[in-house]
Amino acid sequence: MLVEGIQYRSVWFEDEKLKLIDQRKLPFKFEIFEAKNVEGVAFAIREMVVRGAPAIGVAAAYGMVMGAEKPERSAAVLKSTRPTAVDLFNAIEFMSKNIDEGSDLLEGANSYANQVIEQCHRIGEVGAELIKRGAKALTHCNAGALATVDWGTALAPLRVAKDQGKKFMVWVSETRPRLQGSLTSWELYQEGIDHKVIVDSASGYLMKKGLVDFVVVGADRVTKNGDVANKIGTYEKAVLAKENKIPFYVAFPSTTIDKQVEKGEDIPIETRNEKEVLTIGGKRIMSQGVHALNPAFDV
Amino acid sequence: MLVEGIQYRSVWFEDEKLKLIDQRKLPFKFEIFEAKNVEGVAFAIREMVVRGAPAIGVAAAYGMVMGAEKPERSAAVLKSTRPTAVDLFNAIEFMSKNIDEGSDLLEGANSYANQVIEQCHRIGEVGAELIKRGAKALTHCNAGALATVDWGTALAPLRVAKDQGKKFMVWVSETRPRLQGSLTSWELYQEGIDHKVIVDSASGYLMKKGLVDFVVVGADRVTKNGDVANKIGTYEKAVLAKENKIPFYVAFPSTTIDKQVEKGEDIPIETRNEKEVLTIGGKRIMSQGVHALNPAFDV
Repeated sequence: MLVEGIQYRSVWFEDEKLKLIDQRKLPFKFEIFEAKNVEGVAFAIREMVVRGAPAIGVAAAYGMVMGAEKPERSAAVLKSTRPTAVDLFNAIEFMSKNIDEGSDLLEGANSYANQVIEQCHRIGEVGAELIKRGAKALTHCNAGALATVDWGTALAPLRVAKDQGKKFMVWVSETRPRLQGSLTSWELYQEGIDHKVIVDSASGYLMKKGLVDFVVVGADRVTKNGDVANKIGTYEKAVLAKENKIPFYVAFPSTTIDKQVEKGEDIPIETRNEKEVLTIGGKRIMSQGVHALNPAFDV
Repeated sequence: MLVEGIQYRSVWFEDEKLKLIDQRKLPFKFEIFEAKNVEGVAFAIREMVVRGAPAIGVAAAYGMVMGAEKPERSAAVLKSTRPTAVDLFNAIEFMSKNIDEGSDLLEGANSYANQVIEQCHRIGEVGAELIKRGAKALTHCNAGALATVDWGTALAPLRVAKDQGKKFMVWVSETRPRLQGSLTSWELYQEGIDHKVIVDSASGYLMKKGLVDFVVVGADRVTKNGDVANKIGTYEKAVLAKENKIPFYVAFPSTTIDKQVEKGEDIPIETRNEKEVLTIGGKRIMSQGVHALNPAFDV
């Protein structure tokens, strides 16, 4: 991904440390977070220094490299961070197998990371074929390079289409409560892709007005029957796209499919702290005494 | 409406002054704004000390009482504040007729205000019949006492049901970009009505989970064919309610029907400043260089 014209990954291993583009600071500050041990990686996942299922998986893989001396404990610490992200569990399982087999762990984690990037790039190549010149896309949450180490899932087709010289634009919904749309708009801005931010509530209006040609989102988990769990609000956009007869694409690598889970209703949905709804940037936006419900995903 | 246990109207006339609950300060501070003359009333309407078409109409009616010496000038000053609000023009017309007929002006303005309150109360009585014990309601934007002097439109049925001793709860969507949900949650908190705030994107999830029994919203304008223009996001909730087979009620007095307009597509939609999307409470939430689209209503 481009940041001020320089190529970066959002997660990488260097000098025995895991390095991460700190997503808590974006879109205002570009800073690198360093984790020196498993606890540091777990902190980064839990506190959303790193967000996005594939990037979390890669971070966890490198976490297992750093925590190789006590693999079971390391796996438990990492698994406790984010219950909805299936990549986290897959990455830990992959690394545990490497440990059992006595393979080179860093090589294993690197190959896991490279595979994620390659899968995303291929999503981009396939998806770009569906983007017509002059198209208006709509996306929700952040499913770009930050979330997937590079290329992204939902954003990969847009990046590849841009590289192919196609002209198009993107509506970015802000994605309350944590405003992941600010990450998407930051990424698109860095890549020079034309876009505008809207509030989450405005996408139906744009669809009805004929201003959206397709919707493309990522996925946190996909079940055996094809149900998709993704950031809260994704279900709403799918229903609105159906009502307005607009194609709705979910871009994800095959690793996001959870073959253990039959259907969407069986996915446990993380309910996060109500403070995320009641405040913005630490500033309270609702009056004292008022409470909120904060489900993080829908199906 | 109750504020810290005391009954208030959001707009009233006392000691030759117009008094208003200052909506700019809510939900954090409860302050009374005083207007001593027509210019003060015009300021209050223009600067959104008072918001909500019915409340604006009542404020303008009292403004005409204070500006009775130069009625034509007063009417012109008041009309220039919010050129799209139909109630503003209706109220001024009503008061001009009182002036022409030589009626008592304060009495006229009081009866105008009482009529607004009575209409809202009747909406409440009719609507309360539809609320079953244990129901879960969902509302969007603010259509309560603040916007309508007392009782509200969408909130009136909830208040009447509360007075009838019914138990129920309300999901309040925060209503970005201007967070009118914070006014609704403040009102419900003051009235002691059980509720929780959610982000705008979470209503579909709750509907699908069976946690919403009905949706109730107000209306900014209703056309001859029954199309409803209301705060951006209302259309989305209507589509989601349809998908989930949930009753969707629009509560409004007959004065909100615009017989000049045939259908929803003919209503001009106000596009407001992109800063409302890009910032919250003056704080920028998107990175520099990023732009936004900010339609204020949908149909």
